[in-house]
Amino acid sequence: MSSRIVPPPAVPAVRPREDGRLADRIALSAATGRGARARTGDVRAWLAERRRAHVFHVERIPFAELGQWRFEPGSGNLVHRSGRFFTVEGMHVVESGGPFGDGPYREWQQPVVRQPEVGILGILAKEFDGVLHFLMQAKMEPGNANLLQLSPTVQATRSNYTRAHRGAEVQLVDHFLRPDPDRVVVDVLQSEQGSWFYRKTNRNMIVETAGDVPELDDFRWLTLGQIAELLHEDDMVNMNARTVLSCVPYGDTSPGALLSDAQLLSWFTGERSRRDVRAERIPLADVRGWKRGAEAIEHEDGRYFRVVAVSVRAGSREVVHWDQPLVEPVGLGVAAFLVREIGGVPHVLVHARAEGGFLDTVELAPTVQCTPGNYAHLPPADRPPFLDTVLNAPPSQVRYQAVLSEEGGRFLNARSRYLVVEAGDAPLEPPPAYIWAAPAQLRALTRHGHYLNVEARTLLACLNAAAARSRGGLLHGGGHR
Amino acid sequence: MSSRIVPPPAVPAVRPREDGRLADRIALSAATGRGARARTGDVRAWLAERRRAHVFHVERIPFAELGQWRFEPGSGNLVHRSGRFFTVEGMHVVESGGPFGDGPYREWQQPVVRQPEVGILGILAKEFDGVLHFLMQAKMEPGNANLLQLSPTVQATRSNYTRAHRGAEVQLVDHFLRPDPDRVVVDVLQSEQGSWFYRKTNRNMIVETAGDVPELDDFRWLTLGQIAELLHEDDMVNMNARTVLSCVPYGDTSPGALLSDAQLLSWFTGERSRRDVRAERIPLADVRGWKRGAEAIEHEDGRYFRVVAVSVRAGSREVVHWDQPLVEPVGLGVAAFLVREIGGVPHVLVHARAEGGFLDTVELAPTVQCTPGNYAHLPPADRPPFLDTVLNAPPSQVRYQAVLSEEGGRFLNARSRYLVVEAGDAPLEPPPAYIWAAPAQLRALTRHGHYLNVEARTLLACLNAAAARSRGGLLHGGGHR
Repeated sequence: MSSRIVPPPAVPAVRPREDGRLADRIALSAATGRGARARTGDVRAWLAERRRAHVFHVERIPFAELGQWRFEPGSGNLVHRSGRFFTVEGMHVVESGGPFGDGPYREWQQPVVRQPEVGILGILAKEFDGVLHFLMQAKMEPGNANLLQLSPTVQATRSNYTRAHRGAEVQLVDHFLRPDPDRVVVDVLQSEQGSWFYRKTNRNMIVETAGDVPELDDFRWLTLGQIAELLHEDDMVNMNARTVLSCVPYGDTSPGALLSDAQLLSWFTGERSRRDVRAERIPLADVRGWKRGAEAIEHEDGRYFRVVAVSVRAGSREVVHWDQPLVEPVGLGVAAFLVREIGGVPHVLVHARAEGGFLDTVELAPTVQCTPGNYAHLPPADRPPFLDTVLNAPPSQVRYQAVLSEEGGRFLNARSRYLVVEAGDAPLEPPPAYIWAAPAQLRALTRHGHYLNVEARTLLACLNAAAARSRGGLLHGGGHR
Repeated sequence: MSSRIVPPPAVPAVRPREDGRLADRIALSAATGRGARARTGDVRAWLAERRRAHVFHVERIPFAELGQWRFEPGSGNLVHRSGRFFTVEGMHVVESGGPFGDGPYREWQQPVVRQPEVGILGILAKEFDGVLHFLMQAKMEPGNANLLQLSPTVQATRSNYTRAHRGAEVQLVDHFLRPDPDRVVVDVLQSEQGSWFYRKTNRNMIVETAGDVPELDDFRWLTLGQIAELLHEDDMVNMNARTVLSCVPYGDTSPGALLSDAQLLSWFTGERSRRDVRAERIPLADVRGWKRGAEAIEHEDGRYFRVVAVSVRAGSREVVHWDQPLVEPVGLGVAAFLVREIGGVPHVLVHARAEGGFLDTVELAPTVQCTPGNYAHLPPADRPPFLDTVLNAPPSQVRYQAVLSEEGGRFLNARSRYLVVEAGDAPLEPPPAYIWAAPAQLRALTRHGHYLNVEARTLLACLNAAAARSRGGLLHGGGHR
């Protein structure tokens, strides 16, 4: 018989279901306006320098000059020759509201971008001088204003990180492909624009590391306070960074809300049950109301958006070239939260909004989310609720505003003015499909997918930024650098 | 000028985001084995009496004798002449796992039930003698074993409560159509069988009332302790009641779990990202591998399920008649959780399971969920993991077992043995797509839809029942009546 002494098997202890220290560490980073590794005021110059270093060139081309893309015979869908990346197809949406079929009825067809792969939007975090910093990338996207914006450490489609591009390996992606479970701060699938994408979701991640991370020219470590400051600048922080930042688990210090969490979720369940939104994919060639020209697929009345094509050249040493379709909205959008205090706690007015490309009926959206130009032909009564309140708000009531770009890898010049507007006299009992919620409640919902749409998540990141700035002002004498 | 004194507008105070008293009230109901309004031991006789009172008759018929249903020309889909209720169509599923396309690959076609309407499964709650009681209905469903089972107060498709049946009004449905937000205990959209339904969700609700509720022959008020006792009986509590009961917000008294909530959600996000499940609806006539006969649509090898038709007569005074298709599985299913203590806290082994009809890739499922007969032709290595552990478990390790029916309005003789099996030596590091979770974590997830599948929710209700029985045994000397 063996005389070896066999140790008893190690039975792990349980751990608390929540990390009690995390909220404080987040708060400290948000309150830190002076980073350990980069000055906030230098970020814009650094982005300009990276743009020069890489020699980016984006040019509109007619569809006929697309080398890697073609209109598929029969369906007319715009597809990549490899069958990968994404496709531009058609979508037919029927919406009827009301449990008795007595609500509004809408039906329309449109082109839509379909990309069934789940991509990764990942930000790496690391402590410097005891404060969490986040690794932001100067990333070129062909559709972005300024071309380069502050982006997550990694933004990669599955086609990217499986090297379908045959391009360079995605840097630092290993932190996110097999994340250390003890160091995951955020990890959730979130939707993207349901008006332009068919059921697109990306994996939003923040992963902390204690290891060495190589110093790279295209990357900078910034605190949440620094990023908050940058979120006040036009076209600076890209959409992918904003959606990840909206999921940061800030602690909740407010004493409550107008509705309990159970009541808010019940209201949301009611909205999902009441609305009946059915979207079917159809061939792009069959889409009614849209016409295909040599350089664009356009709505017959020139509204909404165009599908166009661009040729892209990029690179410093090794020049990379590709071409691709992009969706180009016809005008500047508006996305705004009305905000008012209720019982001493700020609340925002959210809208249960149906978009044809959502996985499930409605998601929580800003109070106002539209391209005003698309409604210019309509009488005032048919304009979106609260649009005029937002457009006519005096500057003293605007708590936040900036013009921000949507995803520049799929959208061209897709910019919206994001606003948070004080409306102390807004009705406590809003119209159907609108409800007042505390930002802490929305933050809690970002732990799960398909509650907040991407525009509401951007505004939530902006609210966090506005709060950090006012806190930072008190803590540091306005000394964000 | 008016001299009226205008009172200041009433500004509501905020309320706590969670109802601090609710968990205690739930616990009291669960610990109460002796109800104020009905004896547990009388429930079976009452169900038998209601069955006699209503004269239910269900008969199999060939498809040709369906009066209200027909195979649609062209597609071959089985549809109701009104275009409402549900349809039997085809589904084509492709699954490839692994972020690099290196995981398992499966592809199949099958018939599927499609019912895009959201129905209501609602249980009314009310305090008697200071204890919450729940109003359960003796409800006939044509596919159920025993025909009548304990059901929610209301189970109604949208077609039901909008009177498309031209039948009797759904009793008590108003409590759920416009619920009092101050009295909603549970309100969440949950999935149903993804192997048989295409993206079916129902609204699971518990609403409390303080008002008078009419005494009706088909309804009984029971405590959670009484319902827990009845959940130990075969074919007694129907699926709709079980899924609603799984969402009851029990308080969490355990000190933690193997994984934090953030880690568990991150793992789940990883499973959803890794798996690529695409299901397309196809015409029923095109489904490969299935054949349509006069009385059934069957798999060529006789596996999985059949689509059949029944004629139903029911009613006491006024006789109601209808006919409809039903899905009939070919054998008794097994659904089981392995359970083991980790750090003194019980954990169950959950499986991220892909079902073609899920809205999104995978949901958390029991450790074992299958119809063993479908695997009898396969070598042992290809049988589902842990199936033999469950089937061979000695009685001393079975903490719960009962044979329970699935939804009898759509499924005929769809019965599964539900088990909770102690497995103290089960591996702490299970195979890919399996993970240990504390029941309190699963309960927290039932607040949101599409995390737990309906079989896992049934088992969660059974776990709650097993816990209530052991607590009740201590509190009441085993005196459940």
